[in-house]
Amino acid sequence: VESNPDHEQPVRPAISADARRLGLMLHDFNTEFGDRSPGADFLEGRIAELLEAGGLFGFLGGDGPHGFCLFRVRPTLWRDGNEAYLEELYVVPERRGQGIGAALVQATLERARELDCSRIDLGTSETDTAARALYERFGFSNRERQPDGPSMLFYERDL
Amino acid sequence: VESNPDHEQPVRPAISADARRLGLMLHDFNTEFGDRSPGADFLEGRIAELLEAGGLFGFLGGDGPHGFCLFRVRPTLWRDGNEAYLEELYVVPERRGQGIGAALVQATLERARELDCSRIDLGTSETDTAARALYERFGFSNRERQPDGPSMLFYERDL
Repeated sequence: VESNPDHEQPVRPAISADARRLGLMLHDFNTEFGDRSPGADFLEGRIAELLEAGGLFGFLGGDGPHGFCLFRVRPTLWRDGNEAYLEELYVVPERRGQGIGAALVQATLERARELDCSRIDLGTSETDTAARALYERFGFSNRERQPDGPSMLFYERDL
Repeated sequence: VESNPDHEQPVRPAISADARRLGLMLHDFNTEFGDRSPGADFLEGRIAELLEAGGLFGFLGGDGPHGFCLFRVRPTLWRDGNEAYLEELYVVPERRGQGIGAALVQATLERARELDCSRIDLGTSETDTAARALYERFGFSNRERQPDGPSMLFYERDL
């Protein structure tokens, strides 16, 4: 464990050559939390395809690597330029609490700014207190008309 | 008021020629709910640009029109094909409760399926009970591992 866990974990941008590792971790992520997964093989191919096409960005974190994040960039309605959606953030169970998640969030914010994003959003579980604390530490808010408005809820459905 | 409000309100796809109307309504939407707006003139230009570029889809609803929705489509990680994000849904105050919102949601779900989307998500306020009831009536869930998991929360921050 690092003495200053939030500022010493390595991160590097995800490239298509990382797709195997990303697919395995994303499959493990879904499996751990009881979500359906199309399997690591499918995810590997899909992640490689989307990283190459420029529709997906991400980082690997830790020296395994032992974590990753994936995010999207879309043009924003509210000004010229873009906004980002942080879709996935995962650290392998045995390396949690060591600053890998923080390093991934920090890298994502910096890269999103470089990609001309003026805001970023995400969905997370009400009961995932570790994730919520991490996002809140980095300035994310769940409150509409921050800091004291009502909570914002994330909804979804299959089609 | 229609006798069968959910099935008789007209909707049509938004095209760039609708940008003025959309910009005015989106500005009013933000103003009503206390959110910042870059102004109707900016929004008109930006909406026209994004509708033409194919990065944005939407519908106009009611015969004014008196409402609209805007949504995005991105390639999904989970299979071949896409997923959608319902970004904005608005009905002018004097025409609420007449089925315009329902017609807009229904049209969005159908169009998203045509665009090869296998899921759709959105964020909304915990206290906007009318919007939540509408989305839930159309099969959206705020629960992780539906139907009885924890709530999913929407977070954001400026960059």
